[in-house]
Amino acid sequence: MRIKLCLEYDGTNYSGWQWQVEQDSIQARVEAALERLFGERIRVHGAGRTDAGVHALGQVAALSAPPARFAVGEVQRALNALLPDDIVVRDAVEVGENFDPRRDARSRVYEYHILNQNLASPFDYRYCWLIQEPLERQAMDAAARLFVGEHDFAAFRSLGSEIKTTVRHIYGSAWKREGSRLLYRVEANSFMRHMVRTMVATMVEVGRGKVSSAIVPRLLAGRDRAQAPAAAPARGLFLVEVCY
Amino acid sequence: MRIKLCLEYDGTNYSGWQWQVEQDSIQARVEAALERLFGERIRVHGAGRTDAGVHALGQVAALSAPPARFAVGEVQRALNALLPDDIVVRDAVEVGENFDPRRDARSRVYEYHILNQNLASPFDYRYCWLIQEPLERQAMDAAARLFVGEHDFAAFRSLGSEIKTTVRHIYGSAWKREGSRLLYRVEANSFMRHMVRTMVATMVEVGRGKVSSAIVPRLLAGRDRAQAPAAAPARGLFLVEVCY
Repeated sequence: MRIKLCLEYDGTNYSGWQWQVEQDSIQARVEAALERLFGERIRVHGAGRTDAGVHALGQVAALSAPPARFAVGEVQRALNALLPDDIVVRDAVEVGENFDPRRDARSRVYEYHILNQNLASPFDYRYCWLIQEPLERQAMDAAARLFVGEHDFAAFRSLGSEIKTTVRHIYGSAWKREGSRLLYRVEANSFMRHMVRTMVATMVEVGRGKVSSAIVPRLLAGRDRAQAPAAAPARGLFLVEVCY
Repeated sequence: MRIKLCLEYDGTNYSGWQWQVEQDSIQARVEAALERLFGERIRVHGAGRTDAGVHALGQVAALSAPPARFAVGEVQRALNALLPDDIVVRDAVEVGENFDPRRDARSRVYEYHILNQNLASPFDYRYCWLIQEPLERQAMDAAARLFVGEHDFAAFRSLGSEIKTTVRHIYGSAWKREGSRLLYRVEANSFMRHMVRTMVATMVEVGRGKVSSAIVPRLLAGRDRAQAPAAAPARGLFLVEVCY
C-alpha cells in the first residue's frame, strides 16, 4: 500500500528534513514512528529537502506500507500519536504504487517571513527574520517580479551542491505587507539548496536601499555565487505546498 | 531612579515569573540581566506571579536603579540585548519612587486560548489547549458571564495557597470564536493562583455539554475546591495587561 503524507513541522529543533548521521531530522523521526507502528523498517521519501531550521506547512512524503494492516486514516492518527509535538501529519491518502513525491511534483511554494519592527517577539523569533531598519516593500516587490520566468540561478545556489542544471522556472514571486510583517511567496518547478534564502537576502538589500532591483537580472546573468549576498536565516522560511 | 517595565514572554521554558530555588524563572533572568548591566544586585518586582508555562503579553514589573547611569530607553535596549529570545522588554518608563506594580494595579486582564479542532498544530501547541471534541461556544459564554461581579472564588483557588480573602471582583468575562480558536478574556481586580485555569476548565465542561452553566453559581456558593474540575493546562494562558 503506497501512502502519501502531508506534513506540517516546526524545523527549529531539527537538522532538516533529510536523514543525516548523528543528526535529528524530520525524516528520521517519521521513519522511527513508522518502525514502531509496523514493526519493520519503512523508508519515507520527501518531495524536497528542507534545511536545518526551515519549517513546513505542507511537506509531502510517501511510503510503502504492508497492506491490510491499518487503514490510511489509522496510519495518520497513529503517526500523530507517536511523533513529537513539533511534527504533525495533516493528511494521509492512498496513492498509486508508482507515486514519487519528488519527481511527480509540478511545483513547490515557499514563503519567507520578515518581522520589520524595532522589537523582537518572544513568540515569533523562531519563525521570522527580525529586521529593525525600514524596508521599502515596493522596491522589494519590483525585484521579486524580475525573478519570474525561466532563468539560470547559478548565482543563487548553495556552493558545493551537485546538480545537473541550475535553470529553474519561477511561476510567481511577490512580497506583501501585513502590519509589521513582510511576506514573500514564491512558486517554481523546483528549487536548489539555499536558493529562496539567497533570493530573499538579495531583495532585502534592495529594500534597504543598498542596491536597485537591477541587481536581480545582473546576478542572474553573471551566474557567480560570490556576487550574491549570504543566505537569509533559515527560521523565516516555510515550505507551504507541493503541487501535483 | 524607579523604572516600570512592560514584559512579554513565552513561559514554556520557565518555572513561572517568581524566583524559586534551583528553578529557571523570568524574574531570575531579568535580575541576572540587571546585575550584568549595573554591576550590582537589583531586585525586580512583578505585578503578579504567572505560573510555570504561563505566558505574558503585558506583565508589569518595577525596579530601583542607580540614577544617572543609563537613560530609561538605554535600560530597555540593554536588557533586550542581555535577555534570552523568549523574554522581551516591550517598554520601560520612569515612574515615581513609590510605584508598586502589585499594589497600585487596579485590574489584570488574562486571555485563555483553546484550539478546537481535530489536528494539533506544531507551531501553536505551546500556546493553546487542544480540544478535539466540539465545544458549544454560546453555552461557555453564558457560563462566563455568570462570573461577572463580586464573588467568593474559594472553589477556584489553588489548594494550599495562603490568602487573606477569596473574594474577587470580575469586571469582564467572555468567550469569542476566531475560526477554530476559542478565546476567553477575563478582567478582575486581582486573581488567585490557578483561578483563571479552574474557571476555564469549568466552562469547558459546560461547552462539552457535561454540565449546564448553573454549575457556576453553584460552585461559587459552595466554596468547595473539590467540587470544581482540575485546572486547564498552563500553556493556553496569557497575562495580557495590568491596568493602573
